[in-house]
Amino acid sequence: MEKLISGYLFPEINKRKKALLEMNPKAKIISLGIGNTTQPLTSHVVSALKEASVAMGTKEGYSGYGDEQGLPALRKKISETLYNGTIGADEVFISDGAKCDIGRLQLMFGHDVSIAVQDPSYPVYVDGSVIIGATGKSKDGQFEKIHYMKCLPENDFFPKLEKKTDLIYFCSPNNPTGAASTREQLNELVEFARKNNSIIIFDAAYSEFIKDKKIPKTIFDIEGAKDVAIEVNSFSKTAGFTGVRLGWCIVPKGLKYSDGSPVINDWNRIMTTVFNGASNIVQKAGLAILDKKGWKETKKLIDYYMKNAEIIKKGLDEMGIENYGGVNAPYVWARFPGKKSWDVFSEMLDNAHVVTTPGSGFGPAGEGFIRFSSFGNKEDTIEAMKRVKEIKIMKK
Amino acid sequence: MEKLISGYLFPEINKRKKALLEMNPKAKIISLGIGNTTQPLTSHVVSALKEASVAMGTKEGYSGYGDEQGLPALRKKISETLYNGTIGADEVFISDGAKCDIGRLQLMFGHDVSIAVQDPSYPVYVDGSVIIGATGKSKDGQFEKIHYMKCLPENDFFPKLEKKTDLIYFCSPNNPTGAASTREQLNELVEFARKNNSIIIFDAAYSEFIKDKKIPKTIFDIEGAKDVAIEVNSFSKTAGFTGVRLGWCIVPKGLKYSDGSPVINDWNRIMTTVFNGASNIVQKAGLAILDKKGWKETKKLIDYYMKNAEIIKKGLDEMGIENYGGVNAPYVWARFPGKKSWDVFSEMLDNAHVVTTPGSGFGPAGEGFIRFSSFGNKEDTIEAMKRVKEIKIMKK
Repeated sequence: MEKLISGYLFPEINKRKKALLEMNPKAKIISLGIGNTTQPLTSHVVSALKEASVAMGTKEGYSGYGDEQGLPALRKKISETLYNGTIGADEVFISDGAKCDIGRLQLMFGHDVSIAVQDPSYPVYVDGSVIIGATGKSKDGQFEKIHYMKCLPENDFFPKLEKKTDLIYFCSPNNPTGAASTREQLNELVEFARKNNSIIIFDAAYSEFIKDKKIPKTIFDIEGAKDVAIEVNSFSKTAGFTGVRLGWCIVPKGLKYSDGSPVINDWNRIMTTVFNGASNIVQKAGLAILDKKGWKETKKLIDYYMKNAEIIKKGLDEMGIENYGGVNAPYVWARFPGKKSWDVFSEMLDNAHVVTTPGSGFGPAGEGFIRFSSFGNKEDTIEAMKRVKEIKIMKK
Repeated sequence: MEKLISGYLFPEINKRKKALLEMNPKAKIISLGIGNTTQPLTSHVVSALKEASVAMGTKEGYSGYGDEQGLPALRKKISETLYNGTIGADEVFISDGAKCDIGRLQLMFGHDVSIAVQDPSYPVYVDGSVIIGATGKSKDGQFEKIHYMKCLPENDFFPKLEKKTDLIYFCSPNNPTGAASTREQLNELVEFARKNNSIIIFDAAYSEFIKDKKIPKTIFDIEGAKDVAIEVNSFSKTAGFTGVRLGWCIVPKGLKYSDGSPVINDWNRIMTTVFNGASNIVQKAGLAILDKKGWKETKKLIDYYMKNAEIIKKGLDEMGIENYGGVNAPYVWARFPGKKSWDVFSEMLDNAHVVTTPGSGFGPAGEGFIRFSSFGNKEDTIEAMKRVKEIKIMKK
């Protein structure tokens, strides 16, 4: 744990926000920073939560410990609605969220593994690997034993697959770049993993933000993926469950260690030993998200956030700022050639009172970029882009 | 993970139950086996859940990601009501349950630690340690690198403290023996840990079942404990939250590694990296448990289960069967000298159709014992003890 640079990114952002507020106590700061949802739960989901709560107060409706693997009805529903039945209900493990599942996967794979991550990437892939002891020392912002795969506009945000590793963390639609990998790219990824006996940990947390029907929403849409991939996903962004906590992990039965033993057996043991099931009340709400009425409302919620992404992109386009993502993903990735991420961040905070996330916080290849999140209110997003335009700081 | 004997205890119980039902499909099996709560949530808690659900559907009441460490109001409330303010709110970390916290503690301490556990004990202390790689091979039901501390009626279920280890798992009131350690015993434990630079992981999940006012409900009632102990606790048994999921972990600021660095910093990093907070709706219900009305109702729920413990004890006493616990704990630990736990289990299942838990499943020193759980319905508990008496199998 000593190796870990102690939580640099978000505390530093908060420190700079605080400094601004001390200088300028009346500043109305708008956050397009962290990917935190802001819109209420849909009415159908609220009804389900209420119903589940009331039932727990009755003799007939009360339930204690459920299966650690999740409510059978929810496992089945996810299998049927989100995977079209191609993934078995018994391959779906319900959890309290993707971040927590990633931590448990790292526990399962232990410290004796080599790892590849996209650069830039969601910090937990690396931080969790450091904690479990799978990495070496840190040097120039990179850890030994982790292979950083550069994802830049120049390679269409799809890395050159060259180094064989035991695990490959891969996130699409991507956080932070907003890039959604095409079928061809994912084919290449799966083929590479098959050739090298690697296991892909595929983070599909933003899959429901994909609009383009040609882009796969799950790695298991790719032939051969069931032998090499695990998928984590969650209702956090899809249904505004960031605080409610509900996710899932798919471990296909066909996925095996090099000695031929199935990974799913170990995962089952991990889930039954260090986890005790997601909240039963929350799992009932998960069922509501996936029924006809709930799904319709959920789609509207997604549309709302994707309108914000449009507003952000339009604003950046009008300023002539190079930007990516925001079409099949809720993040917009803006480039400022020749500038440092933190400098752009500070300019925007100090002059427009708008919080973003410095790209360099997601890995060395994020330097010179800034991430905009579309999870704010529409009004705030419009106001933020207006302010940014007025100060013109972002012009090249 | 290969070292782990694959989930022996509860699958084996289910297998034997199934076999009985195949032979005798009409058998009405009563379970006094696993410690699963059966009584509805209290009305005040249900109201709080409903209210929190409705709020999440409104613009003003919605909240996304909360602090990974927990809702500040709940941390404060736990500090004030359950620790009388002697533990700071910032030393309270809210979680999805004690079992999950134990897994995260094991992740934090890593594989390079020596461990002591009570024998018998809750299986997760050992199983989780095996998964993280802290143990050696298994021999005669014991793992190398784990020191098993025998707890028997002969030593008042308090072990001889003799071997220095980095970690000491200690559960009081105890699962499975039902023994609640006295202040003198806990003083001895803390003193031993202080002398040896050990860290106690104190599992207080059954603390609210203590009736005797002289028995400490928390290890932090013991002088000097703040320098050597971590405490895990949960609302699972106290408030029927086994399926709802809410617990907490206390890491005092004074607890330090041998190099002088505070353990709480590492714990904070673990919680922010591989955890993302307990469900915000559930945390609101936690606040309701601890307010005046909620606590009164909760006490009644505890009384209900403790009446069952009385019924079980009375039944065993009348049969002349040596038994322990059930006074300051919801488990009754019955002894059958000269018999094997699994044989007694089978006799009771096959002839009385009553499920218990074989003591040997909790460790070698549990051999010859059976655990009765008081978390069933009152009517079922009465009926179960009636049946057991009728078959008289338990007579010595």
